[in-house]
Amino acid sequence: MSAARAAREIKEGRLTSEALVQACLRRIREREPQIGAWAYYDAESALRQARALDRMAPGLRGPLHGIPVGVKDVLDTADMPTTYNSPIYQGHRPAWDAACVAATRHAGGIALGKTMATEFANNHPAPTRNPRDLQRSPGGSSSGSAAAVADFMVPLAIGTQTGGSIIRPAAFCGVVGYKPTFGAINRAGLKAVAESVDTIGVIARSVEDAALFVHAVSGRRLPDFDDQPPPPRIGFCRSPYWEHADEATRNLLETSASRLARAGAKVRDFTLPPEVAGLYTEQDAIVYFETARALAYEFHRFPGKISAALSGRLEQGWRYSCEDYDAAQHHAEAARIMLAAQMEGYDILLTPSAHGEAPRWRQPIGDSLFNKNWTLLGLPCVTIPCGTGPSRLPLGVQIVGPRHADARTLRYAHWVWQRLG
Amino acid sequence: MSAARAAREIKEGRLTSEALVQACLRRIREREPQIGAWAYYDAESALRQARALDRMAPGLRGPLHGIPVGVKDVLDTADMPTTYNSPIYQGHRPAWDAACVAATRHAGGIALGKTMATEFANNHPAPTRNPRDLQRSPGGSSSGSAAAVADFMVPLAIGTQTGGSIIRPAAFCGVVGYKPTFGAINRAGLKAVAESVDTIGVIARSVEDAALFVHAVSGRRLPDFDDQPPPPRIGFCRSPYWEHADEATRNLLETSASRLARAGAKVRDFTLPPEVAGLYTEQDAIVYFETARALAYEFHRFPGKISAALSGRLEQGWRYSCEDYDAAQHHAEAARIMLAAQMEGYDILLTPSAHGEAPRWRQPIGDSLFNKNWTLLGLPCVTIPCGTGPSRLPLGVQIVGPRHADARTLRYAHWVWQRLG
Repeated sequence: MSAARAAREIKEGRLTSEALVQACLRRIREREPQIGAWAYYDAESALRQARALDRMAPGLRGPLHGIPVGVKDVLDTADMPTTYNSPIYQGHRPAWDAACVAATRHAGGIALGKTMATEFANNHPAPTRNPRDLQRSPGGSSSGSAAAVADFMVPLAIGTQTGGSIIRPAAFCGVVGYKPTFGAINRAGLKAVAESVDTIGVIARSVEDAALFVHAVSGRRLPDFDDQPPPPRIGFCRSPYWEHADEATRNLLETSASRLARAGAKVRDFTLPPEVAGLYTEQDAIVYFETARALAYEFHRFPGKISAALSGRLEQGWRYSCEDYDAAQHHAEAARIMLAAQMEGYDILLTPSAHGEAPRWRQPIGDSLFNKNWTLLGLPCVTIPCGTGPSRLPLGVQIVGPRHADARTLRYAHWVWQRLG
Repeated sequence: MSAARAAREIKEGRLTSEALVQACLRRIREREPQIGAWAYYDAESALRQARALDRMAPGLRGPLHGIPVGVKDVLDTADMPTTYNSPIYQGHRPAWDAACVAATRHAGGIALGKTMATEFANNHPAPTRNPRDLQRSPGGSSSGSAAAVADFMVPLAIGTQTGGSIIRPAAFCGVVGYKPTFGAINRAGLKAVAESVDTIGVIARSVEDAALFVHAVSGRRLPDFDDQPPPPRIGFCRSPYWEHADEATRNLLETSASRLARAGAKVRDFTLPPEVAGLYTEQDAIVYFETARALAYEFHRFPGKISAALSGRLEQGWRYSCEDYDAAQHHAEAARIMLAAQMEGYDILLTPSAHGEAPRWRQPIGDSLFNKNWTLLGLPCVTIPCGTGPSRLPLGVQIVGPRHADARTLRYAHWVWQRLG
């Protein structure tokens, strides 16, 4: 059941939060031994919270009243351990809830548990398996959030994205991922990776659910999905890395563009100017430089407890000079302004969500070629599950909108989904 | 003794870190009962660290080797409590060092203790007294950092600024404060207030010491202070709030501009365009909006443990809409671009550091009228102690440079100081 429908049924007294949480817990007990989506969950505490919410007066209820939510284990929780999937922090119990967790609870949501992340939301894989094929990875770094939502363990899960950490695992698991405009959801209590890029978002099973969550925790406008927008003007952006997408993905995107054009959308090719295409390498300079500094304590104090994959990335981060970093930041700022002007004739862009199907289990989570420039530019991104690849695993198409135009972008993403999904 | 000189003498074997730390501790034991600069310090631990550093091989030593540093108590430390000066976090012991603390230690610095901050670096005053007059406040929010450095308890102390929280207390205490370009020092482990504005910097007794610290923790270039720059082109920016500065401050700035012109500087009036002047109110929208969200956990969970002053500010933050906030952010971005163009004919700006002398003890720390637009714009700011007011308390002049031009700005601030200080 979708989060939006569950919220409506709880509001109308046709469903209790306790029954919904019980259903989620049953699914988790059944499937978790195979999937490994959870770093931690506390069934008794979740049920207690659900019962308390069921007793709460209707006037006090928030937009997520009674809805269980998975929380990526890089976000602090005062009542659950938070490990950032690092051996350094096994059993660590933060003193606070991250701002987005506090907001989830204030809106009536139940933090059901902590979903598996890659180590510090970086490149060392999580043990989670892809519910669509247990020999595959869900991708990362929001591995458990994507797997738990795709496997019906929970209707919503919080994710974070610095490269492609929401969009990519959502696509690999066949669900919706939504990374809002940079800064839309406050980051206090997030274990920082790259402070000028890290963005909090959500994984859900529909665009409406993703929109409901971000509305509930940020106060941003909930789009009216019943009001059909006119067909959008779509920029078809194959991206400079088009040849890195596999054939099925390229075919999917071409077919999708044609279908949307037949449905009334005005589809034109959209080529990134070289200044924006260059951001693929600039993003590495910014993210690795900042990550090395953000994890300075762990790097200097516990070098033996950091994976080889992450250590290599941190060492790379220390090799960038401040001048490289400043130049990359200036370049990114100029690109934001340039791209905003270029997007003026378009409502949304259509572009791949990932290179293809999910990678093998425990393989590197892969480069975020089709995501990281959008993240650095701060633009809202939505991935929509759409079609399958050669191994019958899910593929996705990505909708990208102008900065701060999240409500419009979500409405158009919904429009696209209704025609392709 | 200055940090730069102490570092040289330790390097040359004419001073031990242990002797330096002992001298600081003697001063603290003597003066702390009157001043109240410290939330916590551990003499034994500091001495142990100093002795270990004295035994370290010369080849392994960093640029702050053996130098004691005060750490504002909104920055996490793994070996000392961190309270954010809130009753909610009495005795709280973080699991990590903030990135800037880890970098201080990696550079050979000794985190001597935690300096008093206002509650969550906001507007409820700290108990600290101004060493220049015990009936006065050092200002805030970096109250203890400014007082400890001014009172010779420690040569350097880390501060943070969201409005005027470094520049203002440094000016009130008659020392140097340096807020680098936004983002120069990584913020992981800082208790966030306003994530798009919060900036880490330093309070010191000379421009050279301030520059040394930021070089040591960020890797940013250390200016060559022996190489005299040509006299700068100075924009004299009285600011739209000139009439809020008291007469002594206005006279000080006018006199300083004349003296610098006589010393060879090319001084011209610099008027902020209305789009930049408007940022005084836009800054409130951004800072209060973000602060309310960053402290959502504390606000919802412990309303009775938040001061009335801060509660009022948080409630104000919740009243701003997302549209107000987005508009303020767009306005600030446009102003950054506009001001960068306008500053092209100038090396630095000269502007007041504060409205006048330090306020009475425990009075509100005051509005940051002369600081907050520069903070929002992300520009490097240095306050230089210069002259006194009607009560013979210190005043300061503020030097503001272009974004990322920190080394040049520091060299010119040093040039100005040699002529005015």
